Amino acid sequence: MPVQRADARRNYALLLAVAEEEIAAHGADASLEQIARVAGVGSATVRRHFPTRRALLEAVFRERVETLCAHARDLTARADTRAALLEWLGAVTADAATIRGLAIALTRDPSAEPGAAQDNCCSAQLTAAGGPLARRAADDGALAPGVTIDDLLALITGIALATEHHPDPAAEAGRLFALAVTGVSPRRP
Amino acid sequence: MPVQRADARRNYALLLAVAEEEIAAHGADASLEQIARVAGVGSATVRRHFPTRRALLEAVFRERVETLCAHARDLTARADTRAALLEWLGAVTADAATIRGLAIALTRDPSAEPGAAQDNCCSAQLTAAGGPLARRAADDGALAPGVTIDDLLALITGIALATEHHPDPAAEAGRLFALAVTGVSPRRP
Repeated sequence: MPVQRADARRNYALLLAVAEEEIAAHGADASLEQIARVAGVGSATVRRHFPTRRALLEAVFRERVETLCAHARDLTARADTRAALLEWLGAVTADAATIRGLAIALTRDPSAEPGAAQDNCCSAQLTAAGGPLARRAADDGALAPGVTIDDLLALITGIALATEHHPDPAAEAGRLFALAVTGVSPRRP
Repeated sequence: MPVQRADARRNYALLLAVAEEEIAAHGADASLEQIARVAGVGSATVRRHFPTRRALLEAVFRERVETLCAHARDLTARADTRAALLEWLGAVTADAATIRGLAIALTRDPSAEPGAAQDNCCSAQLTAAGGPLARRAADDGALAPGVTIDDLLALITGIALATEHHPDPAAEAGRLFALAVTGVSPRRP
């Protein structure tokens, strides 16, 4: 029935808007009960739209992740492949360090079945979008042997999690990632 | 009264043992109510011994952190200052990646007053113990300019948080930290 479908769409949009506010205020652990309360719906409605907390995080960050993926695609034609990769990784680092909950959404889902497809998850999308940038840089000899896009995203996610409570998380995360790029101890004395 | 003091000591030891088990099973977010229940004490008793979750984490990991600090002191006389620093950082990485809750205990305390003394906290102890190793390596030109022991511990903490749900967290964290040591993209092509 079209009326019900329209109601469901409105509920979804409202829930998503409330979830964004609550996660911005309280991080990835924001209370699902509080989200239901503020949106004026029952918790069964929240669970119907978002069966897991992970599903909620994915929905909240979908647009931001798509923006990052578009940024990666824009950079794949640039001649300086190392600069292109580092520009994109810098953008991911800045977002992961400043947008509360995003770094958690980028970590491995502890509840996922081992080997299960995670096609829609934020992390898989970033891996797919950043992969070509990493491969082009690797082909140019600009990546250490064996370094994958997943390694780079794991480092960024970790740095964002570690700097979450720093007074200036974006600057601190960017600085630490730059150290990991060139190496904290690149050579023997 | 000695009897009460002995009771309090036993309560404390019991609570700490239960807290260790619960944190090993459920991570840093382990339920304080569950800890009280398993220990057979009231939640007021838990709060008296551990006013904050952070205080509980600090107490649970005190011995492990002291072991790491002793390891650092053992290494400060070694002639190869880079190898000494990297051996110690590798030991911290392995513990942070495999002992549930430890990496969280090493992050900045979000509830601490800015600039407040955190003399007893795990992170401050590791900074104090590892500082001489980092300074000796820096004096030998084995650290990139400006890299501090806090930077190194932040990278380790972040890598441990990012690899928490990996099938082999110790191996993965060690591999990522090794990449950060020598650099994921150390040079221009």
